[in-house]
Amino acid sequence: MYHFSSVKDVTDLKALLKEAFELKASPFRYETLGRHRTMGLLFFNSSLRTRLSTQKAAANLGMNPIVFNINDEGWKIETEFGVVMNGDKAEHIKEAAGVIGRYCDIIGIRSFAGLKDRAYDYAETVLEWFRKYAGVPIVSMESATVHPMQAFADIITIEQYKKTARPKVVMTWAPHPRALPQAVPNSFAEWAVAAGYEVVITQPEGYELCEDFTKGAVIEYDQRKAFEGADFIYAKNWSSYREYGQVLHQDRSWTVDTEHMNWTNSAKFLHCLPVRRNMIVSDAVIDSPDSLVIEEAANRVVSAQTVLKQILQSL
Amino acid sequence: MYHFSSVKDVTDLKALLKEAFELKASPFRYETLGRHRTMGLLFFNSSLRTRLSTQKAAANLGMNPIVFNINDEGWKIETEFGVVMNGDKAEHIKEAAGVIGRYCDIIGIRSFAGLKDRAYDYAETVLEWFRKYAGVPIVSMESATVHPMQAFADIITIEQYKKTARPKVVMTWAPHPRALPQAVPNSFAEWAVAAGYEVVITQPEGYELCEDFTKGAVIEYDQRKAFEGADFIYAKNWSSYREYGQVLHQDRSWTVDTEHMNWTNSAKFLHCLPVRRNMIVSDAVIDSPDSLVIEEAANRVVSAQTVLKQILQSL
Amino acid sequence: MYHFSSVKDVTDLKALLKEAFELKASPFRYETLGRHRTMGLLFFNSSLRTRLSTQKAAANLGMNPIVFNINDEGWKIETEFGVVMNGDKAEHIKEAAGVIGRYCDIIGIRSFAGLKDRAYDYAETVLEWFRKYAGVPIVSMESATVHPMQAFADIITIEQYKKTARPKVVMTWAPHPRALPQAVPNSFAEWAVAAGYEVVITQPEGYELCEDFTKGAVIEYDQRKAFEGADFIYAKNWSSYREYGQVLHQDRSWTVDTEHMNWTNSAKFLHCLPVRRNMIVSDAVIDSPDSLVIEEAANRVVSAQTVLKQILQSL
Repeated sequence: MYHFSSVKDVTDLKALLKEAFELKASPFRYETLGRHRTMGLLFFNSSLRTRLSTQKAAANLGMNPIVFNINDEGWKIETEFGVVMNGDKAEHIKEAAGVIGRYCDIIGIRSFAGLKDRAYDYAETVLEWFRKYAGVPIVSMESATVHPMQAFADIITIEQYKKTARPKVVMTWAPHPRALPQAVPNSFAEWAVAAGYEVVITQPEGYELCEDFTKGAVIEYDQRKAFEGADFIYAKNWSSYREYGQVLHQDRSWTVDTEHMNWTNSAKFLHCLPVRRNMIVSDAVIDSPDSLVIEEAANRVVSAQTVLKQILQSL
Repeated sequence: MYHFSSVKDVTDLKALLKEAFELKASPFRYETLGRHRTMGLLFFNSSLRTRLSTQKAAANLGMNPIVFNINDEGWKIETEFGVVMNGDKAEHIKEAAGVIGRYCDIIGIRSFAGLKDRAYDYAETVLEWFRKYAGVPIVSMESATVHPMQAFADIITIEQYKKTARPKVVMTWAPHPRALPQAVPNSFAEWAVAAGYEVVITQPEGYELCEDFTKGAVIEYDQRKAFEGADFIYAKNWSSYREYGQVLHQDRSWTVDTEHMNWTNSAKFLHCLPVRRNMIVSDAVIDSPDSLVIEEAANRVVSAQTVLKQILQSL
Repeated sequence: MYHFSSVKDVTDLKALLKEAFELKASPFRYETLGRHRTMGLLFFNSSLRTRLSTQKAAANLGMNPIVFNINDEGWKIETEFGVVMNGDKAEHIKEAAGVIGRYCDIIGIRSFAGLKDRAYDYAETVLEWFRKYAGVPIVSMESATVHPMQAFADIITIEQYKKTARPKVVMTWAPHPRALPQAVPNSFAEWAVAAGYEVVITQPEGYELCEDFTKGAVIEYDQRKAFEGADFIYAKNWSSYREYGQVLHQDRSWTVDTEHMNWTNSAKFLHCLPVRRNMIVSDAVIDSPDSLVIEEAANRVVSAQTVLKQILQSL
């Protein structure tokens, strides 16, 4: 593995999962692998789990993790080419990438979708310029369209708890007060399909995701029908892809509550966090023994460490 | 020791002080004790001494310290239960605590009193939810009502400089332009009494602290009378506990100056820092050889390291 | 070496350059030299290269680097003496320096010129109070008037690429939308002269730098004449020293473009970064093979590591 943003960067997902469980059992087995290696963690946006888990994963592998809130602690970054830089952006992404690539052996980047310009976001502009100009492996720590370390942690969690070889995994849209990117549902869809699960996506009309990511999943607009027989419920809000970045409605009948969970096959509940309680999911569901959200977040260390180990071994 | 917020968490203060002086002399004696352990330092508020000294203490013990400015770098935290989270708070404390508890072996938390709602503050809401939901030891790095690592450093400093077995230690209120929490004076009072000193607290009427913390101390409203015979003057501002969070006045006759120090038994001067010069204390006093404020701050590393060592040994 | 802010702190620049190239070749040769040593990196201002490269340099030497955004994460700092601190500044620089000096074995400080009060800035107030009160070596990571770790990296880069023993090195003013400090050009001038190069400074009238730094350099107001025969072009904006902190004009005929570079002796292009593209330098020039800006930034690790090694060896 070199760059990491998509399940397509994984040659053999089964083998990667096997490695993940080995690292979960023995997190310090490769504690000298990253010796003399620096991991840059660049944050254009807020982060709790990604920030802490990736730092820890890098340290577990013996790397030196350097965290950098680029916009706040550094300079505002220009991503357009050919412009006269006489505004508020003091540094061009080409130099930022080139320089950070000389300081770091691996760079993780969090850079959310702006949700204003779909073409810009779906070109993964920031990630791509770093890939092009940094000269070192680039890992998405949630970029405009994907959140692969989250999705891999989700799959690890499902593998840990599944009771059948091919569980029914239902990703459901849920309401939220603000416009959120599609990165998490995009990645979850492509990873869950790649993992071989029966994947159903349920959402109100207008919330269809980009088909590049949902190929192989069944779309079911009737939430109840989707939930029937589900082994895992994966709740998430996202803004519209079609009417790009719009919140079309906030229908709280879509909030996952006990009644919704009763429609399922005693499903386990998943969410990437942070979660808006009583918008996305009721207190009763997230506080129930069927909620795996804390274990799922704990698996972020495993996910990050497995990916970083793969990359380190390829250097 | 497991959680650490009060002198009540200490079984044997004399023994702890002995350990502190051993660590002060040999800071790297236990440099492998924290191997493979992660210390999370969560800051809801500003910090200089606590931030740097606790990081250093954790590193001295071989831990991996991860610093996190939770509101700025992460998500705004909801601490109420049962609410519909459709406002500006994106993450609930229950998930934040649960997740961070999976990434960290010990969590230090700085979370100041809001000074609006005494019941909320004195319930130590943030600390308590972390204790309840993180599943790992929680250390107060100044929370709503206490600052135990400061108070322990203060006691270490007094032990270092006292000339009699039972010195007279006077904590005096002093003026300040803003409303400050009661955490530092609360902790100093309970620790100084527990250390067996003759403790006098002097303050204008209306500035009485919560009695839970001042038991065993003498209250003396006449500042001059209080200072007479004092071996140590501990200056601090706090807002009113009774008229909660109010600044009742800013009487600069309470500012500790040379005349005040002349009333004492050649007392040493202490303050937790940061200090407002010429409000809390005159330049002449803080710059005099009797001022111990820098040594007191230096002892914050000793204090933190002793506490973390105790906790690590209990894991 | 003890404190480090000027080329005058260097006893033997040739020997220091030799060491730099040894460290560039073997960055981990002294990886235990800094064992049990803490490096504090204090930022009053934004930073990308300095922040990342100094952290990495400290880690390469086995030090424990602690990064601290002092105004944002700590308290606002009062630098005046004798004042009544009843405003927004909660901590005095005397205590800040004294305390941080007890936590750190070496302190790096970034504190830009305010560009309001020339006497205050050119007294290097923040740096000097730290030198006076911290009790440990203080390294400028760009302070009000100097940026020595940048200038040393610049000289390393010139040594790496020069084709003649005494290259012609031209520092040219270039336009910028905002008022910038003189720290970078001040340091580059004094270091380039000390390195024995033929140094020419070209600028519009009114942009003359403080002569303390430019002694030994030729001043040439005709940019074209200055560029003729140049082996290295070092572009930089700065605000006026005479009309202190003023932007006198933003004449884009001074922007370094291909035509300008054609005047030279196939010069290499240098800039400390971040750079405003198409204000300071055209895309064509900075993107050309003659641009050394990324290598120059990469040499910031070498520069910092050489300086820190020297200081560590003197402790």
